[in-house]
Amino acid sequence: MKISIIGVGLIGGSIALKLREKGVADFIYGIDNSSRHLDEALHLKIIDAKVDLEYGIKNSDLVIIAIPVDAARKVLPSVLDLISEYQTVMDAGSTKAGIVNGVKEHPKRSRFVAFHPMWGTENSGPKSAIAESFSGKAGVICNKEESAADALSLVETIVKSLDMHLIYMDANDHDVHTAYISHISHITSYALANTVLEKEREEDTIFQLASSGFSSTVRLAKSHPEMWVPIFKQNKENVLDVLNEHISQLRKFKAALEKENYEYLTELISNANKIRGILDK
Amino acid sequence: MKISIIGVGLIGGSIALKLREKGVADFIYGIDNSSRHLDEALHLKIIDAKVDLEYGIKNSDLVIIAIPVDAARKVLPSVLDLISEYQTVMDAGSTKAGIVNGVKEHPKRSRFVAFHPMWGTENSGPKSAIAESFSGKAGVICNKEESAADALSLVETIVKSLDMHLIYMDANDHDVHTAYISHISHITSYALANTVLEKEREEDTIFQLASSGFSSTVRLAKSHPEMWVPIFKQNKENVLDVLNEHISQLRKFKAALEKENYEYLTELISNANKIRGILDK
Repeated sequence: MKISIIGVGLIGGSIALKLREKGVADFIYGIDNSSRHLDEALHLKIIDAKVDLEYGIKNSDLVIIAIPVDAARKVLPSVLDLISEYQTVMDAGSTKAGIVNGVKEHPKRSRFVAFHPMWGTENSGPKSAIAESFSGKAGVICNKEESAADALSLVETIVKSLDMHLIYMDANDHDVHTAYISHISHITSYALANTVLEKEREEDTIFQLASSGFSSTVRLAKSHPEMWVPIFKQNKENVLDVLNEHISQLRKFKAALEKENYEYLTELISNANKIRGILDK
Repeated sequence: MKISIIGVGLIGGSIALKLREKGVADFIYGIDNSSRHLDEALHLKIIDAKVDLEYGIKNSDLVIIAIPVDAARKVLPSVLDLISEYQTVMDAGSTKAGIVNGVKEHPKRSRFVAFHPMWGTENSGPKSAIAESFSGKAGVICNKEESAADALSLVETIVKSLDMHLIYMDANDHDVHTAYISHISHITSYALANTVLEKEREEDTIFQLASSGFSSTVRLAKSHPEMWVPIFKQNKENVLDVLNEHISQLRKFKAALEKENYEYLTELISNANKIRGILDK
């Protein structure tokens, strides 16, 4: 199968590496605004050739869009304009309602499958791509009833080739759940980094004292705005809703400390501990 | 050297394993309120014998206190009462001003060295102990001028045997810095877990969608209140100060989203990204 990947960064690159390793992809075209990324991807054997959008689309069985969610939403209609009824398009974006709604009335809507692999790191670019990154993680397909049976079936094969476990979800539900489980984690991590940078003017002290706990909590704060601002923008209402809840949860800790109510503090922490039972099932 | 460890859990157990591996400890006495922990520690060869406090102290060159900070603060004067001028006592607690101030006037103050290894996990108990856990991390000795030269020198040897890099700090400064770098991370993680548990009633969805990003941000929320409530209590003022700053940082994200000011949001995220340069020196 010939595949075009629009966006040969962390996600697109990792998908390409894995699909080649699995023998699913015979030939991979790379399309990217960054010629440096294209050259790196060629060098790393992530792609076989760098091409322009039109050439890649015309010559592929499958087109994978793996660029920031606002750019993906913008490019998808033009991609659908260019494909035939034997080709399939999938994306890999972290928000789903916007992209799905944007092509609702497109005559070739059914050739598109909305996909979100629940994996990422704080790094970006083809050099960060890792073939094994998706293994065991959730791969979410949204609004599958809006896709043609053969297109859906092809993407299901791709998701299984990535060794992900398949989940089906409504696009709006997806955006609610990811606001809770993924997007808010990034905001707390960014805000934590800014807190420490604001309060701790001695950078050497941060570096020297940083424990594994701090590093893991603040890891996501290294993620770039190019990817995350569009996500927050597209999922604004849900993110604001959960951000308000988060601030009110933090205020409970503040109140418990201010009032020296250590029983209440213990209760808050014991409740948080329940996350262990859920995550370590 | 004979060593008594008061508290054979995660920290005490890990110190014991490493000191035995390095040949620093010939014989390790274990002292703990939990007889289950003592039995586990014996079984795991973390300790050689379980003894009572008085016997252990009388028969050791070095006494290591590795229990929650409020209990450590309470037990330290009695331990000092029992030792001779040839013995040394160290602790391993996450807050330092309280324990140091509590023995300021004790006639044997100089036999005590205040220590904090900047390492921990969300787990507890002897079964979680790992010999290599401290390698490369910071080991902080506080108020070294209040300790006798030979006691300080012994503890410095211990810290180097743990393969930690030694830092000296004033106890009050230590508590300010750890509020920024360690304690607030735990509060944000607890609050994040409570946010998700409050908003996401479908536990299976949390489990299925949880990505590596979420897991790493919420990891610390598994830490037990028995350890953390005393830390927050002893470091209340500093923790409240940084918690207020953190809430105000989160409000900036909220304002940026509410006003759809994506330039400001980009600025906030770009500022947070600076943490990469500091942590990955």
